[in-house]
Amino acid sequence: MTVIVEKFGGTSVGNVERINAVADHLMDKHAAGEQLVVVVSAMSGETNRLIDLANQISESPSHREMDVLLSTGEQVTIALLSLALHKRGNDARSYTGGQVSIRTDNVHSRARIQNIDSARIVRDLEQGRIVVVAGFQGVDEEGNITTLGRGGSDTTAVAMAAALNAQECRIYTDVDGIYTTDPRIVPKARRLTQITAEEMLELSSLGAKVLQTRSVEFANKYRVPLRVLSSFEAGEGTLITYEDESTSMEAPLISGIAFQRDEAKLTIRGIPDHPGVAHKVLGPISDAHVNVDVILQNASEKGFTDLTFTVPRSDYPVCKKVLDSLVDELDAKDTRGDDTIAKLSLVGVGMRSHSGVANLMFKTLADNNINIQMISTSEIKISVIIAEAELEHAVAALHQAFELEK
Amino acid sequence: MTVIVEKFGGTSVGNVERINAVADHLMDKHAAGEQLVVVVSAMSGETNRLIDLANQISESPSHREMDVLLSTGEQVTIALLSLALHKRGNDARSYTGGQVSIRTDNVHSRARIQNIDSARIVRDLEQGRIVVVAGFQGVDEEGNITTLGRGGSDTTAVAMAAALNAQECRIYTDVDGIYTTDPRIVPKARRLTQITAEEMLELSSLGAKVLQTRSVEFANKYRVPLRVLSSFEAGEGTLITYEDESTSMEAPLISGIAFQRDEAKLTIRGIPDHPGVAHKVLGPISDAHVNVDVILQNASEKGFTDLTFTVPRSDYPVCKKVLDSLVDELDAKDTRGDDTIAKLSLVGVGMRSHSGVANLMFKTLADNNINIQMISTSEIKISVIIAEAELEHAVAALHQAFELEK
Repeated sequence: MTVIVEKFGGTSVGNVERINAVADHLMDKHAAGEQLVVVVSAMSGETNRLIDLANQISESPSHREMDVLLSTGEQVTIALLSLALHKRGNDARSYTGGQVSIRTDNVHSRARIQNIDSARIVRDLEQGRIVVVAGFQGVDEEGNITTLGRGGSDTTAVAMAAALNAQECRIYTDVDGIYTTDPRIVPKARRLTQITAEEMLELSSLGAKVLQTRSVEFANKYRVPLRVLSSFEAGEGTLITYEDESTSMEAPLISGIAFQRDEAKLTIRGIPDHPGVAHKVLGPISDAHVNVDVILQNASEKGFTDLTFTVPRSDYPVCKKVLDSLVDELDAKDTRGDDTIAKLSLVGVGMRSHSGVANLMFKTLADNNINIQMISTSEIKISVIIAEAELEHAVAALHQAFELEK
Repeated sequence: MTVIVEKFGGTSVGNVERINAVADHLMDKHAAGEQLVVVVSAMSGETNRLIDLANQISESPSHREMDVLLSTGEQVTIALLSLALHKRGNDARSYTGGQVSIRTDNVHSRARIQNIDSARIVRDLEQGRIVVVAGFQGVDEEGNITTLGRGGSDTTAVAMAAALNAQECRIYTDVDGIYTTDPRIVPKARRLTQITAEEMLELSSLGAKVLQTRSVEFANKYRVPLRVLSSFEAGEGTLITYEDESTSMEAPLISGIAFQRDEAKLTIRGIPDHPGVAHKVLGPISDAHVNVDVILQNASEKGFTDLTFTVPRSDYPVCKKVLDSLVDELDAKDTRGDDTIAKLSLVGVGMRSHSGVANLMFKTLADNNINIQMISTSEIKISVIIAEAELEHAVAALHQAFELEK
């Protein structure tokens, strides 16, 4: 029994024509001997329509009722896709999250999946049925409808694949795979045939927004073979793999270059260097609900320290205000800020076993006259902060230097 | 504990403004000490939108998937109404048919309610919550979503009232009660403050389409006090009561005049009179999926019989064809037809204990020069078939003759 889970997002089922195309595709796969469980999202536009209705009634709608409301979006899609499959001769069955017992905790609007009862699905598959499951939704212990939050349908698909011990979980999107970097910036950017989950996590949290971080983490945890493909063109896509010792030696040096525009950096300088400085500065920033990304602390003169951090550019004004208000309190010298920066990251599990990656990166940037403002490293990633104006130049130069076009 | 079930149809919750109005109304009732369970339909237009989507995919969509699809309509309404109640300070809870275990048989698209588990609702009511339940839907034994067919939300409300032993079940509609006859034809038509369920059944099946027959039957079976009111204007509406011996003596002679336009009648004449004639004629009509209404059989000459019946006017052509094809087979003389007729019925439990109703009816029609083509009677109803052109004249004359304007 070759069970495959396939997931189609809102654009892929955005209208009747697209739903028919998905049904054609599924019938082909089914004819080729695959036992199929299909996870679908709400038709694109539907979720926004429902949110708009709710907002007309209440500015702060309860999460429980929003889940009841929004879960109807996927329910419409599963029914329509099943009808399209019936018309093509398959006795497909649709199921809501509740009906196949996608049991979650009770945190409405961002619930976590705890358990899936796959007995009913297995029975249907054995009878040759294609099973169509509503993504993004589940039920808590008391039978209340929950939703999984952003990227929830991807998570449903991965969880379903784990529960069914599926051979592969295929996520259909509007791109045909994961690239070495953004092809709009580097035309020679190359689609990766495979990538490790670890690399994927670094890439996706850095702005290569093909898959939600959470679904990759989930896949990683249960070692679900995950493939990203285009729902509009044929192709193999990119397979996300799980590193083991035998393969890591052969891993490429780096897999891709991720970047994030719209960043800003702030510095508070000349703070008397006592324990707790970082907390005193970043506590108020966190209270303002800002996510801080890169943080650097360095002694400047003896007895004084500087603290620099980056934030999303839209949060720059509020952060600058908070920081300015701290100068007196902390007896600091002054604050500085720059909201024209970008972050660029090299990602690759190969870094672990190869030295020289950082060196080549810094040399390439220097040769191209690009000034590095900040550096931050992790085990499989090196990030630099540079001027946004130099971002595209830097990405292209590094893509070539690391021979990513192969 | 005064539990009241209130039901609002699609027009009453047709947009955000109407939903807010219903929420205001419910808060008033709740403040007045009523414990409220509210049953709602899909917002008007929504069901048609969904059916249209399905029809774009399949000409003969499966009933199971149509139920999955259509049940989302009510689910949207329960969420939105609950949000509107939250905004007004009540910790309302919404429930789908499945969530409060409205258990039905498994006949998709026209399921029958078998059982309701009211424990969860009672708990919410005890905590001061208004409970909002999706009408029209349930689940079968295996957890498949079912819908109850036409007028299903009324049936849900009545079943809920029976399960909770509610003091009253209020059905809000676009009319302010049950009238002695159609006020558009007889301006003096009067709203009835009460009517027996039996009379209501005769009236509604005869075309006074305020309540679906099925929900009245259901209410009658469980003796649920049922009130029909306007969702747009204040008023007492009409209370549907259950006759017992002590009240029947005081019942008015007749309660109302119902009528049905768009009828047709067909006659096959001169059939040799053998047992089984009715079956031989009406069997093929039934096979053509036509609902026959009034049926009369009479000997014409010795050894021969005539059979006349009425059908909806839209079915006239197919019935005429079937009948013509039977002439040779049955050795009949010929067929006749008239598709310009209407049916008019006097309804009233008072008929049982008062003679003379039929006499006054026939005399009034004769005085007004209106020809009776067929007569059919039941215990609490007398129906006549007349030319449609004379219908309004007849209704007005009878309304006055029986002093229905009081």
